[in-house]
Amino acid sequence: MNDPHPWAAGLESLHDQVWLRLQRGVADRHAAARHPVLATVAPVGMPQARTVVLRAADPEARLLEVHTDIHSAKIADLRANPHAALHVWDAGAHLQTRIEARATILTGDAVAAIWARVPDPARQSYGTRPAPGTPIADALAYDKPADPAAFAVLRLEVLAIDAVHLGQRHRRARWRRETGWRGEWLAP
Amino acid sequence: MNDPHPWAAGLESLHDQVWLRLQRGVADRHAAARHPVLATVAPVGMPQARTVVLRAADPEARLLEVHTDIHSAKIADLRANPHAALHVWDAGAHLQTRIEARATILTGDAVAAIWARVPDPARQSYGTRPAPGTPIADALAYDKPADPAAFAVLRLEVLAIDAVHLGQRHRRARWRRETGWRGEWLAP
Repeated sequence: MNDPHPWAAGLESLHDQVWLRLQRGVADRHAAARHPVLATVAPVGMPQARTVVLRAADPEARLLEVHTDIHSAKIADLRANPHAALHVWDAGAHLQTRIEARATILTGDAVAAIWARVPDPARQSYGTRPAPGTPIADALAYDKPADPAAFAVLRLEVLAIDAVHLGQRHRRARWRRETGWRGEWLAP
Repeated sequence: MNDPHPWAAGLESLHDQVWLRLQRGVADRHAAARHPVLATVAPVGMPQARTVVLRAADPEARLLEVHTDIHSAKIADLRANPHAALHVWDAGAHLQTRIEARATILTGDAVAAIWARVPDPARQSYGTRPAPGTPIADALAYDKPADPAAFAVLRLEVLAIDAVHLGQRHRRARWRRETGWRGEWLAP
């Protein structure tokens, strides 16, 4: 039987595939990497996980970007502990990608150019009143005025990537910044 | 236009739907909740997220179960910090479920009856040599002998549930053990 994913057999081709699929997530709203799960650690030490939208992926700079409301809980989490994990399960590729990253929170003038390119309907995701996660008396007792002051960009500097390909035999590899992105196979 | 998900309009029906879909994940390998993302905190404080298989969901006891290899990194994470988050995105229901839980690690005699019901092919997931995450010289330089001594059950005691339904207008609610599971609406 032919291997449907020959790129899974080599460390370099597997690494390339991970970044290719992250870039596809940015470009194509139907790609698996469009909606990663972002995990953070709340100030009390509780892990938190939620779906986000991947907005940028730069393989050369090893940066990823996610947009969020500055008043959301994930911002409070990342201010206390800037480490984040991103998780993508790509069913078509039989590929799980796990990313460790350090987040920088950008707002205001630093993201004005990005805000200018956010389409009108999407702008309503930033500036919910009361702030996201606030208890409200009724399910619909909130407003969504577009508020550039609530718009934040999470710039995620990738520190490590762990990829698992589920094939006839599973293959798992890891790449880390601290070892110059030299890949290594791991027992899956 | 008719609401395709009338259960999203009430706190109680939304809560019921969350548990119904968790139970469906256990029973049906094609259900969204079959493969939640489990987030933990590594001893160094880094969040970690990976796909798991949901093996049990008990709405009365508010317990969930996941099986794992006792030598996997998630076990080390949970020994240092027993808190875990589970995340399910159910595309068909337009429903994101986020669960906060406290994990108990069960092994040996305590899980012998569960091990006895694990089908033969699935048993190979427990006992990988070298241990999962160990660097290996070649992608396939590992063995998967079924080893009951490596079989662990994560029993997850649910502490809180946060659900978001994405409809014409989004609805978000939360239920917590510490307030007797009384639900409340949150700004999404």
